[in-house]
Amino acid sequence: MSAAPVWSVDPRSGKPREQVAVEATAEEVDRAVRAAHSVRGALADRTARAAFLRAAAELLEESGPHIIEAADAETALGPARLTGELARTAAQLRAFAEVVDEGAYLDIHIDHEDGSRTPPWPDLRRYKIPLGVVAVYAASNFPLAFSVPGGDTASALAAGCPVVVKAHPGHPATSELCASVLRRAAARTGLPEDVVILVHGFDAGVELVRHPLVSAAGFTGSVRGGRALFDAAAARPAPIPFHGELGSLNPVVVTAAAAAERSEQIGAGLGASMTLGVGQFCTKPGFVLAPSGDAGDRLVKALTGTVSDTGSGVMLDHRMRDAFLAGVRERAALPDVEAPVTPGAGSEHTVSAGFLTVPAALLAAEGPHDALLEECFGPVTVIARYDAEDEVTAVLSRLPGNLTATLQTATEGDDPEAAALLTALTPLAGRILVNGWPTGVAVAPAQHHGGPYPATTSPSTSVGATAIERWLRPVTYQSTPDPLLPPELREANPLDLPRRVDGRRA
Amino acid sequence: MSAAPVWSVDPRSGKPREQVAVEATAEEVDRAVRAAHSVRGALADRTARAAFLRAAAELLEESGPHIIEAADAETALGPARLTGELARTAAQLRAFAEVVDEGAYLDIHIDHEDGSRTPPWPDLRRYKIPLGVVAVYAASNFPLAFSVPGGDTASALAAGCPVVVKAHPGHPATSELCASVLRRAAARTGLPEDVVILVHGFDAGVELVRHPLVSAAGFTGSVRGGRALFDAAAARPAPIPFHGELGSLNPVVVTAAAAAERSEQIGAGLGASMTLGVGQFCTKPGFVLAPSGDAGDRLVKALTGTVSDTGSGVMLDHRMRDAFLAGVRERAALPDVEAPVTPGAGSEHTVSAGFLTVPAALLAAEGPHDALLEECFGPVTVIARYDAEDEVTAVLSRLPGNLTATLQTATEGDDPEAAALLTALTPLAGRILVNGWPTGVAVAPAQHHGGPYPATTSPSTSVGATAIERWLRPVTYQSTPDPLLPPELREANPLDLPRRVDGRRA
Repeated sequence: MSAAPVWSVDPRSGKPREQVAVEATAEEVDRAVRAAHSVRGALADRTARAAFLRAAAELLEESGPHIIEAADAETALGPARLTGELARTAAQLRAFAEVVDEGAYLDIHIDHEDGSRTPPWPDLRRYKIPLGVVAVYAASNFPLAFSVPGGDTASALAAGCPVVVKAHPGHPATSELCASVLRRAAARTGLPEDVVILVHGFDAGVELVRHPLVSAAGFTGSVRGGRALFDAAAARPAPIPFHGELGSLNPVVVTAAAAAERSEQIGAGLGASMTLGVGQFCTKPGFVLAPSGDAGDRLVKALTGTVSDTGSGVMLDHRMRDAFLAGVRERAALPDVEAPVTPGAGSEHTVSAGFLTVPAALLAAEGPHDALLEECFGPVTVIARYDAEDEVTAVLSRLPGNLTATLQTATEGDDPEAAALLTALTPLAGRILVNGWPTGVAVAPAQHHGGPYPATTSPSTSVGATAIERWLRPVTYQSTPDPLLPPELREANPLDLPRRVDGRRA
Repeated sequence: MSAAPVWSVDPRSGKPREQVAVEATAEEVDRAVRAAHSVRGALADRTARAAFLRAAAELLEESGPHIIEAADAETALGPARLTGELARTAAQLRAFAEVVDEGAYLDIHIDHEDGSRTPPWPDLRRYKIPLGVVAVYAASNFPLAFSVPGGDTASALAAGCPVVVKAHPGHPATSELCASVLRRAAARTGLPEDVVILVHGFDAGVELVRHPLVSAAGFTGSVRGGRALFDAAAARPAPIPFHGELGSLNPVVVTAAAAAERSEQIGAGLGASMTLGVGQFCTKPGFVLAPSGDAGDRLVKALTGTVSDTGSGVMLDHRMRDAFLAGVRERAALPDVEAPVTPGAGSEHTVSAGFLTVPAALLAAEGPHDALLEECFGPVTVIARYDAEDEVTAVLSRLPGNLTATLQTATEGDDPEAAALLTALTPLAGRILVNGWPTGVAVAPAQHHGGPYPATTSPSTSVGATAIERWLRPVTYQSTPDPLLPPELREANPLDLPRRVDGRRA
């Protein structure tokens, strides 16, 4: 039996570009995990890890033109967008180097022996250690920032965990280039190259999450694929944490006052956000509650204008294009659903953006219109028109978990609905926006990119400094003589780390 | 169909004491969860929560004599131990009140708008919010500290989550008393009583973890029971975090130098630790690697003395007694296993402590002796005698995850094996002890009570301040006008909370 070839395909033509690799067999996955596991000790040194992450950023930038060319050829995302994404990916690697340097993520707590307690406290010192080999399942829609050199890989390496990445089949050539960059960066900083290993193939991905030496997994992708891997992770003899970002509708509520104030601006902003990257952002606003009546009509009209002006675009691959077309067909066929701009096929290889409208009352209880409450990947959104505020509350209470929820409220004067709506939106998502658009996720310490299921499978983030927390576990040393303690926990604090000593920040 | 009665049983006689309650039907579980869910808003106020936890501690102490009497009658743990456990449980409630007051657990991060970034950062403010209703599965072996008023309940309430507790069938009367204390404490501090609701029954426990309005679960108990509930939590349409403490062998390694230095002391200390509470601690040292030769022989002799001097004891219930007797019988029957003090039945209702010895070499590879590497609940431990250090490493590499791992090393002079052994023990457990015994878990900020599976099902702790983290999820507010922000995140910091602003601790 010969190995299954992995082809790079041009989504603009549907034609194969080149054979990039072969799919990994079960034995190859086993070898990859063992190799990664065997070099985990090399990642124990924080200084080396920070240097490695910075070298990776530098090499990524050096190889930028070559990588962007390959990524554009495989994903059709365009050089401008990919140039920005590469810069963001490099910045992310550097941001995690800073996190490693600072060491606050170690969450060091020291409680000295205290005989005055009942029962007495022994000397206790806690910090966090890496879990072990992390499996990363790369996303299709960000071939850099959420793929091989992306946030999952960067945060896992920052934590001190070797990574085995399962490449996304949508951009295997880009994946190979990026893996090579990461491995060269390791070598350049004196680390074994096997701290990052790339594998291809669907079956390889399943083998990976089941491997006894894999300690945790990160995933960005579809609900179906993510849930299957989550289930496999939970069904292992020893289950492992599975941090998956699966799907999100990203609801938006436009208050009556907001619509009265600036419906044209909201309609235009929504149109730009939902069509960004051919509607392939996980934070695309996919469901909007807007008032009926004149102000809401003006919003729809402005959206119609913006969306009509959006040219057709190439989706990441033909499978996604087919799913998009099937999804919009199914939704548009529902009774009382209208399509002011019909989303659908452009040319043989493109899609054109559009949106649907529906009376919000039809979504207040279970029924056939529930399909409108499921994410449809691609440049389409749903505008549910409401007559009264209780319709908004009723529909919101039926939504699944989300990455984001957005409130469009009046910017001048008091908006009587704003506070209550913000309270209603908070349980639905991990990021709440006011008068903004959810596409675009700043890589900042206060960022949170996650939310109630199916947005993510755990209350964790895949973007921002705290993404590192997913790959660590606490360990406490009790009554351990100073010379036997890890340097991070020694009394004299030789590494000058932030810590809490006897309850006080030191 | 009449409701199944719940009886309180006296383990000293095996006789029923009284009918305490009836098992909850599916409808009753649904009502309980909905009631708890409906009052979650009342827990939003941190000041009220802290007052509630303190009132619970006070009422627990006031009802102490009554509760201890019931608990002793149902568990045979004795008034002395239960008096200490009640004090610890009250202290734990107060410790979580302090955690709530301090507010560091909110993990507040604020990043101001920053146009100098590429792309620009919007204003981002993150803190943590309660997950929702938490299901707590009470343990048998700590009828207070890990049961109805225990760490899971206290930490979930501290996080702002209402709790539905599934009572352990081993102490239903104690559970009812404690639930009543917690509900009275809620009422006294102006909170609805339904912030804590108690249900009984095995089926009720299964219903509970499947209920759509339950957002997370905490469990302390057996591997079999915990895994079944973990699986049910993972199989839900929307999976929830399941923080279970399932089982632990708590290995101890005695170095040659330690044995040479103080084998009598180590043998006596081990005997005291493994028989504490009739061997029913989750941190009981259940597996000891000790050197062969004279020093090791003296250790075994000292252990023989201590264990022989330990009177027989009553286990928590007859089912556990049966499991203990079957477990020691199976293990003692293995070839080359000896029992210097035979563990087994005392009188009709008691058990007597004992221990087994085995050559460590027999455990270095898979085989029938693997039963010795599984926890046996009750007053028994296994001494594996080793000839060389590589036998120790080989056996350690075969152990499952543990709550604790202990090194007994020389206290005077250099112990050449100590550093390498500590490195080998760290991957095995969440708490590493040097020259101590693992029974006894201080409720301190630096404590960690958890470990690799099956010690716990997640990298979290059920003891100490950070236990609160299990019941929270982050949420970030983006570009939200100050008056719409929760007070915790407002610019002026009206609640005077610790936070990180633009990367700096403020």
